[in-house]
Amino acid sequence: MNPIPERLERQVQFLIELDKLKSIYRQSYLSHEQRRENSGEHSWHVSIVALVLLEYADEKVDVLKVLKMLLIHDIVEIDAGDTYIYDPVGNEGKAEREIEAANRLFGMLPEEQAIEFRALWDEFEGKETAEAKFAGSCDRIIPLLHNYYAQGHSWKEHGIAKEQVYQINSVIEDGSASLWKFAKELIEESIKKGYLQAQ
Amino acid sequence: MNPIPERLERQVQFLIELDKLKSIYRQSYLSHEQRRENSGEHSWHVSIVALVLLEYADEKVDVLKVLKMLLIHDIVEIDAGDTYIYDPVGNEGKAEREIEAANRLFGMLPEEQAIEFRALWDEFEGKETAEAKFAGSCDRIIPLLHNYYAQGHSWKEHGIAKEQVYQINSVIEDGSASLWKFAKELIEESIKKGYLQAQ
Repeated sequence: MNPIPERLERQVQFLIELDKLKSIYRQSYLSHEQRRENSGEHSWHVSIVALVLLEYADEKVDVLKVLKMLLIHDIVEIDAGDTYIYDPVGNEGKAEREIEAANRLFGMLPEEQAIEFRALWDEFEGKETAEAKFAGSCDRIIPLLHNYYAQGHSWKEHGIAKEQVYQINSVIEDGSASLWKFAKELIEESIKKGYLQAQ
Repeated sequence: MNPIPERLERQVQFLIELDKLKSIYRQSYLSHEQRRENSGEHSWHVSIVALVLLEYADEKVDVLKVLKMLLIHDIVEIDAGDTYIYDPVGNEGKAEREIEAANRLFGMLPEEQAIEFRALWDEFEGKETAEAKFAGSCDRIIPLLHNYYAQGHSWKEHGIAKEQVYQINSVIEDGSASLWKFAKELIEESIKKGYLQAQ
């Protein structure tokens, strides 16, 4: 084989490494199949959520940046694993594990791409810009929908109650008041239907 | 529950319907796990391929449009199923099945979103604009990489030989001369390594 240019070789190695995100399983169950969702397919789903629900962002957002953030936001899980958001023990040291993962994974890319992807990931994690806040709202609304349509499957499995769900999901409000209003309605309806414990 | 505005209700129903794409399995095997890839996770992967390999597009492309196209390009498979690209019988009537699927699925959205998504899908399928051609290159390069890194698993399973692979993948050249050069090297290397039959 003619030698592949080193730059393309690095890009290809990074892209192949990404396959591993399809083997990282989240706590969310799919709504149409009895299996957990993986972080690769989640990253696709949440990107379309952002496209479809864009009009509900409270601030004007650069949609290309939102999509880039959502496409890469979970890549660090290849090394750091998926941490269940309601698990306080699992969340200890999560930030450090993920930073190490970001160093290794984005560092596989040619330098200026590594810097761009890392900056996007840092911005997403920082939750301060309009894009990061709206991307964060999308990233929380979709597991809520999954839980609702899977009749509270992962909530029940982990004994999660209303207050925790309110606490964790209130970040939806930072990016979108109207999606937070909808989320609260979903949570209340989940309690009424017995998908979620009231306390 | 307070009635959800009809517009948001339609958007949410569409987003939940998308879960089904995660149960549509392609012929490609993952490079790190012994299972087939589903079309949801593929759609994520190919979107990042476009981001990372953007510099190799022969024409200047609107990257947001490329991403939108790739995020939605396989949604029709929810109804029409995935058709193996090397299967001439399965490909009979594929266009009609997919158009019917596009009518139903994109039609779930509020009208102007349905029109936007449908136009993006039509443009992708048309393979005429710079964005559609580059998106098409990305969509073909990734199964080639999968086959190479899975040692020709799905080629062997279906008895695919060199000529078919050249024929099907030559569309990569329409969007990127340098990715086509790389693809040809991968194909030749696959033959040398015994992953692909020379004839």
